[in-house]
Parts: sequence; structure tokens; C-alpha cells
Amino acid sequence: MCRLLGYIGPSIPLDYVLTKPEHSLVVQSYQPREMKSGVVNADGFGIGWYHPQKDTAPFVYKNILPIWNDVNLSSLGRYIESDCILGYIRSATTGQAVDMSNCQPFKSDRLLCIHNGRIENFKQTLMRPICDRLSDTAYKGIAGSTDSEHFFALFIDELQKNPSVTLEQALQTALLNLDELAKSHQISASANMIISNGKRLIASRFATSIEAPTLYWTKEDPTFPKSVIIASEPIFAGDWHSFPEQSILSVGEDLEIEIHQIATN
Amino acid sequence: MCRLLGYIGPSIPLDYVLTKPEHSLVVQSYQPREMKSGVVNADGFGIGWYHPQKDTAPFVYKNILPIWNDVNLSSLGRYIESDCILGYIRSATTGQAVDMSNCQPFKSDRLLCIHNGRIENFKQTLMRPICDRLSDTAYKGIAGSTDSEHFFALFIDELQKNPSVTLEQALQTALLNLDELAKSHQISASANMIISNGKRLIASRFATSIEAPTLYWTKEDPTFPKSVIIASEPIFAGDWHSFPEQSILSVGEDLEIEIHQIATN
Amino acid sequence: MCRLLGYIGPSIPLDYVLTKPEHSLVVQSYQPREMKSGVVNADGFGIGWYHPQKDTAPFVYKNILPIWNDVNLSSLGRYIESDCILGYIRSATTGQAVDMSNCQPFKSDRLLCIHNGRIENFKQTLMRPICDRLSDTAYKGIAGSTDSEHFFALFIDELQKNPSVTLEQALQTALLNLDELAKSHQISASANMIISNGKRLIASRFATSIEAPTLYWTKEDPTFPKSVIIASEPIFAGDWHSFPEQSILSVGEDLEIEIHQIATN
Amino acid sequence: MCRLLGYIGPSIPLDYVLTKPEHSLVVQSYQPREMKSGVVNADGFGIGWYHPQKDTAPFVYKNILPIWNDVNLSSLGRYIESDCILGYIRSATTGQAVDMSNCQPFKSDRLLCIHNGRIENFKQTLMRPICDRLSDTAYKGIAGSTDSEHFFALFIDELQKNPSVTLEQALQTALLNLDELAKSHQISASANMIISNGKRLIASRFATSIEAPTLYWTKEDPTFPKSVIIASEPIFAGDWHSFPEQSILSVGEDLEIEIHQIATN
Repeated sequence: MCRLLGYIGPSIPLDYVLTKPEHSLVVQSYQPREMKSGVVNADGFGIGWYHPQKDTAPFVYKNILPIWNDVNLSSLGRYIESDCILGYIRSATTGQAVDMSNCQPFKSDRLLCIHNGRIENFKQTLMRPICDRLSDTAYKGIAGSTDSEHFFALFIDELQKNPSVTLEQALQTALLNLDELAKSHQISASANMIISNGKRLIASRFATSIEAPTLYWTKEDPTFPKSVIIASEPIFAGDWHSFPEQSILSVGEDLEIEIHQIATN
Repeated sequence: MCRLLGYIGPSIPLDYVLTKPEHSLVVQSYQPREMKSGVVNADGFGIGWYHPQKDTAPFVYKNILPIWNDVNLSSLGRYIESDCILGYIRSATTGQAVDMSNCQPFKSDRLLCIHNGRIENFKQTLMRPICDRLSDTAYKGIAGSTDSEHFFALFIDELQKNPSVTLEQALQTALLNLDELAKSHQISASANMIISNGKRLIASRFATSIEAPTLYWTKEDPTFPKSVIIASEPIFAGDWHSFPEQSILSVGEDLEIEIHQIATN
Repeated sequence: MCRLLGYIGPSIPLDYVLTKPEHSLVVQSYQPREMKSGVVNADGFGIGWYHPQKDTAPFVYKNILPIWNDVNLSSLGRYIESDCILGYIRSATTGQAVDMSNCQPFKSDRLLCIHNGRIENFKQTLMRPICDRLSDTAYKGIAGSTDSEHFFALFIDELQKNPSVTLEQALQTALLNLDELAKSHQISASANMIISNGKRLIASRFATSIEAPTLYWTKEDPTFPKSVIIASEPIFAGDWHSFPEQSILSVGEDLEIEIHQIATN
Repeated sequence: MCRLLGYIGPSIPLDYVLTKPEHSLVVQSYQPREMKSGVVNADGFGIGWYHPQKDTAPFVYKNILPIWNDVNLSSLGRYIESDCILGYIRSATTGQAVDMSNCQPFKSDRLLCIHNGRIENFKQTLMRPICDRLSDTAYKGIAGSTDSEHFFALFIDELQKNPSVTLEQALQTALLNLDELAKSHQISASANMIISNGKRLIASRFATSIEAPTLYWTKEDPTFPKSVIIASEPIFAGDWHSFPEQSILSVGEDLEIEIHQIATN
């Protein structure tokens, strides 16, 4: 289990959502409340953000240390401003390396993605079947060894196969592929995702054969007007809504929330 | 608060005491039971040990990562064997750097030392007064910036001033100096220590104006015959004895436990 | 020996001066040209910068890895923009810890500082005499163990003792103090410094009993119009001027270069 | 280019071969003499060794820092003793992550392996073709993303396919496979390897379409009697022999050197 955060709204310094809230990712790293497995999220972290003015590729900052021990975060969180932010703290699956390459967000051109979930016994079960499905381009985009990144590659593959597909559609197809693969290998899998292109947040709460990890959203909270925040755990007391299980939520700059239920077999 | 471990007995692979017990330092790093402050002990760790056959300076291994993320520990814990072992996991005081220099054990010639405790508001209160008391040699031995290492320097200073003094006497004098300094600055302080010269373990449970952190010992446990283990928290179910507060315990190769009460003013 | 870089001019992305020039700090880290000692500068690095619009404390980013291995630098160098930038790559003195606390820039309120030089046998010679001279405030500002940071504390001490003193005057006094201390202990010392308050760069090339490390400046280079760059080694082919030895150069937003010779006894 | 070291002979403390020789891996990391590409070897390092008495799996110690900055090496090099040692310093191919998973030695059951060489444009050329050839077991053994580890998997695959094959034969087949794959993709490749099972060292100097990196061996040097050392660069002045190109050398506890020329098409 990891912990995810997504923000879309007016441009703000990163520390407003990353470190200042009372139950921020920093607190969730040593004292999370709603973990399905694991106890802490101290195996590295990462941040992704888009430039609030320039139309350019997104930015990523990662570290293998626990987020609370990053001496640079106070400067970066104070200097960097964005209207579209992803935050991630890692709880590594036992045996998976604490490598930079395994720290999220993952990036592919203009897209950023963070993932919380698990493919049961990944290396022994779905790693090779997933790789075998991937186009050369999607396959070569994989830099690390996590189930998360391989699922992200499945999603990228869907996008690349059909450039007219929306992010929501590609995510849904990838989730259905995961569901089918998991069922055919008789394993459980979960995939809470937040994906962005800088203009929208697309998030899923999804699992096969187990309960999906928690995921919440809040809109236009008084302290974050004109914004939507998505998080594994509410980062402050407020009006948070739980995602339905097996659903995809998407929201753009107009803050219109669209929730789409995924029908698995 | 950090967590301490000391072992003296027959030569064993390090992992027997460091990682294999059910409530080992690895478990205590993410799920400790008896912390007076802090939640986890994930700001680095260290191990010290003596050569079971050769009469040579002790050995130290340290890392700034959480102990559970050290990929080398399984090899080292399996290869290295010793009859006198110290183990330490760190919970850094807020604001103190997660630097190698601040990871324990500290070493001075044939001595190793680990410390759990805190000098209240150290940098603003006792850092300079302690430094002013130190001989040039003890002062120059300080490599980092922690209260722990400065207290260790006070202890080393006592030893160097009077070569005929025992380790127990030097530790007692250093604790009394700390007590006096703390009282004159109207602050609290605590100093649970385990010190070794490879032949003995000398440990203190001590505090001024607050309750001392917990410290336990067990002797000749069936799984560790002919040995004494000292630990901040029992590392397995067994016959563990709580140190009296304000006391120094010492034990040598004959496993005779001596407990000495410290009388403060 | 470390390598220093200072920039003042129009606001630019950090990578324009840090990584893109043909002999950038990245190249100087593995292939420097003018080192007085050491072979590479691969013991960590740091960047300091000021906000181009907001009147706020400066920002610092540091890492203990070689600069070429920092996966975050491409995002940060592309996103962060500033009109006043310091860059630093470290070549640690043998035996000094590769700790974050020993990575520069050092920061004190609105000031940033980077240092290249060495106090001979520092821990055995001037560490304690320097500490003894410092006010409590300057003393408590020291977080690491390097000669660099202790010299920076000497400089800060001068500023704090006399709020009407200029940065140039404080630096000169600190250098003369260093010269006097070095001579009285019969050791060599050097102190190439770049200091900034966000409005000016103040730099020194200075040594006692040895040749000072190199330091250069260039003004209004065609690729960096309306700017001044100071560097241990020219970062591109151009019209670079060598600092006179024993001198302080200062330059503000008007780009007027002032060079002041320091008269030692 | 990386730098390799192999030792077989009487049991010695690791530092005898790793850090004490005048042109040790520590010196080669910042000042190598015979690199075909790259300037320094400062992207991590690793050590592998076998227990001199116990019949047990080998041991590995790795770090992503330059070898000269590892504070633990003096203790480990002094404590650990072995009769069969591998040492490795890394010069990462540009763009390959400085992750622990990419640090060598690689390990598979009782085998250790280190590799110096390069598959041209690996991710775009041979990564997928190599993976496609691998059995599930060999494929799942890959933890990182380097060409080195994928070539090691080719070798392991040969061993697993035919348990009666010798290490020398499996290495030769893997090299011929590499040669064929490289030629069919019209790329260059090189593979200097040292492999051990604790009883023998098997080493290759091999390249396709380019000159192979250097590799040397010395036997019964006066300072290392009854031993064979293999190294990318001689680690001290002595009677070193250059490996023939396209050859495999193997040596066991009897120190009999066997050199076998590899005939490629």
C-alpha cells in the first residue's frame, strides 16, 4: 500500500497540499490511518507537477528516503507552484527494491501517473504476461521492476494503440485487462490510480478478488477554493467523498466531477 | 527516542539477535511498543561488534536508510559473527540531520557506545557548555551534531582524565555531570546508554526531571544460553527484567550482573 | 578543492548556467581542469537561489551523490528560474563525512554562501579557536563539521556584531581573522567564497601561505547578456577575467564590478 | 566501462585486495588508466565473497555511492575474510539508473558474477530479444535494467537448460549467443565477465565489432602467494598477463590457469 494525492485548481505552492495539511503525506508516511497492508509509507516518495504558465513537459521530484527526512522539501515546496500536482509516498512490497526507478510518479511524455495497489505475487504471476502484451514502445518505457509501473505500461499501451481514445477509456481498458489477467491467473489485484495530463485528473478505485484500497475526493473546500483534491486518506477534516469501488473519476479545470462505474465480468 | 540492543555471550551470527527475533530491531523500527516520543525508528541505524578471536579495534556498520530497507543486512547478518554486539535504530530529534555522522554506534579506540535519550533543546542549552568542559582530545573526537555524541564525549573525557577509573565509574560521573548541567539550565535530559570494550557491557537507565526511557535485560534465555541481552524493548517473549531507574548495570564474560544505583542530588 | 559558480542577471532557468554550458559543473565534477588538490568533485553538490519576484528567504537544494547522478536535476533545472544563483560541487577533504550537513550552500537568514578552500589540518588546528571566538548565535548556526562552515560562521559573526557593516567589510574582516589565526598556528588556509543576499554577489579569492585556488568572472557574455558569472573554472569559452589573489569582488544588479585588494600583514 | 576484480587463493581480509593495493579499485574509481569510455567509476560499487569455511550461499555488499565515500568499507574490509572474492566499481551507461538493483555482483544460488562491457543502445536493441529467449526462471531472476544483468541471465539460462554443462561451456554459449544477436542487429557488444561458484573463477574478455575492454591476470605474486588475481587494470606493479581477446580463462584452487579461445563466426 502506498498513499496518493492529486490536486487540480488555482496555482499554489506545493507545500500547501504536500506538507502543511494536518494529515499530510508527511504524517501519513509514519502514521497512516487506512492501510490495507503495511504499517508505514517510508520507502521513498515522489512529486509530479505541471507548469502553471508554460506548455511544457511535466516535472518530477523523487527520493528513496522517507518524505520526512528530505531536507530539500521545504525549499521546493515553498518555491514550486502549480495548478496540477501529484504526490506519492511509497510502501514497498516486501522484496521490491528501494530504487529511484521504483519511485513514482511515472512519466510518459505529457502524462504523469501514481499507483497504489498490488498484483499478487507479481513477479511470479503477471510480470511476463503483461510484458508480452506490450508494444515495443510501451515495453521500452519501463525503467524499474514494480507491478505499478507495469500496469502503467498497460495503460500507455492502450493510449498508443488508439490515439483517439480518451484517458478515461484507456484507463478503463487497462483495468479490464488487469482484471482478466488476474482472474485467469487466479490472483488478486488492485489498482488505485491518479493520472494527469496537466489539464485533468483521472483516478480509479479498483480491485479484483479483494477490497480496493480507499480513495477520497473533496471539491471546493473553503481552504482550497475552486479546486478538487483526491487522496488515499483525507488530508484535513472536511467534506470528503469516498470513491465507489470499481469506478473511474475524472475532473478538469471546470471542476465538473464525472464518475463512471466499471463493469467487470 | 531510539532503540538499543546489546549482546554478550558465545559468538553468534549477527542476524540471530538483530533480525530474527519476533520483535527485532527491524520490527521495532516500524512498530515499536514503548516509545516515550516519536512514532517510528526509521532515521538510520547502526551495528557495532568485536572480533570473536582477534584482539583488534571494534567494527561498525551504519546506514541512513531505515533498517528494513538495507539490502546488505542479510549478507552481513549471516556472515559476521561476534560475542559482543551492539545494535541501534534511530529516531532523529526533529531538525537533527539524517547524516551518517549522526548514526550510532560511536567509537573511540576500543570502545563502542549507543545512546537513547534526549537533552532538551540541546543546541540552545547544553551544547556549548558541554563542549567547553571537554579536553581538546574529547572535543576533536566529535564528528556529528547530536546530543548523544556530545554526552558520549563527556564520558570519554572522564576516562581520559583518569586512566585508572572503571567504565562504570566514568559513566556514573558523566551522568552526574549531565544531571548537574541539566538542573542548572532547568531542562530535562535522559541517557540510556550501552557501552562496551568487547569484554563487558555497561548500560545505564537514567533521566533528569523526566521518566527515563525503558531498558530491559535477560540472562541465559533458552534460545540464547550463556548470554545476556540488553534491549529498549524485549526482542522476544521471555524472562526480561526492567532496569531500575537511575541505575547502571554491568556484565562481563562471566555473566555476573551488577546493578548500581546512582544517587543524584 | 570544490568548484563554485555564481550568477546575477536576468531571471533564467537554472539549467542555463548549471548543466547546459560546455564546461558546466556537471563536467567539472568528473573532469575539472584547475584543481589544486583532489581529482574529481563528486562528494555531493548544492544549489542556492533567490525568488525572482517574491521578497522571501532563499532556497537551497542539496544532494550527497555526484551531481551527474541526480535524477531530479533535469526537472528542477528546467522549472526553477532565478536572477541570483549559486552552484557548488564538493570535493570532500579526506576524512570529512559525506553528510548533507556538509553540503553547501550554507544559509543564514537571507544570506547564502559557498566556499572553496581549506584550513590545513582543520580539526587539529583552528576548529576550536574559531568556535571560541564565535558568539552564541553564530556558534549555534553551525550544523556540520567542515572548515568551510566554520569560516562562514566567522563571517556571520562579523555581520551580527555590527549591523551597519557591509557584506564586503564583514568578509574582509573574516578573511583577516582567518589569516591571523592561520599565521599564529603556522598553517596554511584558503578561502574562495561567493556570498549573496539576493541583490549582490560578493566573492573572494584569498589564501594564507599558499596560492589561492583559481576564480574567474565574466560580464555580459553574448549568451548571458546583462549578467555577471563568477566561477572556479570558466564554464564556456569567453572573456573571463582571473580574480587578483587576495581580493574581494562585488557586483550588484547594475553589474558594476568593484574589486578591492585585501592587505594582510 | 566498469572495473572488475577477482581473487582466488588463501583466505585474506577483503581490504588486502580491495583497498590497500596502490592502484586499488578505490584509486581506479577516480583515476582509472585504461577506460574505453567514461572517465570515472563512481556510480556505485559492490563486493561478493564466499565463506572460507562454511559451505553456504555467497555474500554481497553493495552501495550506490562512489567506493571512496563508503564509511563502512574500512570495518568490512578489515573484518571479512575470504578465499574467493569479487570486486566491482560501476561506471553507469548514460541514462541507466544509479539503483542498488543495478549494482553488481549479481547472484544466482551459489554463483556470483560481475560484468564490464556494453551492449550498444541496449534498451532499443537487444533487451527484448534477450528476454524473449529466457526461460521463466531466468527471466524472473532479473531485478534491474542493465545490459549486464540481462547478459548474466543468458548465462544462467544456459546453465539451467543443461545441468551437466560446465561454467566455462555455459559462458561460451552465452557469449556466442550475444555475438549472434549483436551481429543480427548490427550493433557492437562487449562482455568482460568474472563468474565464480566459490571454487573457481571463470573470466572472459570478449567483444563483437569493437575492441574488448582490457583484462589481466597474475599468479603467485610475492605479496599474494598461492593466489590468482584477475583485474581490469593491474592493481599493483607486478607480473600481469593480458587476456587474449575472445577468450575464457578459468582457474580453480589448484591455480592451474586454463585459457580457451572462443571462435566466433
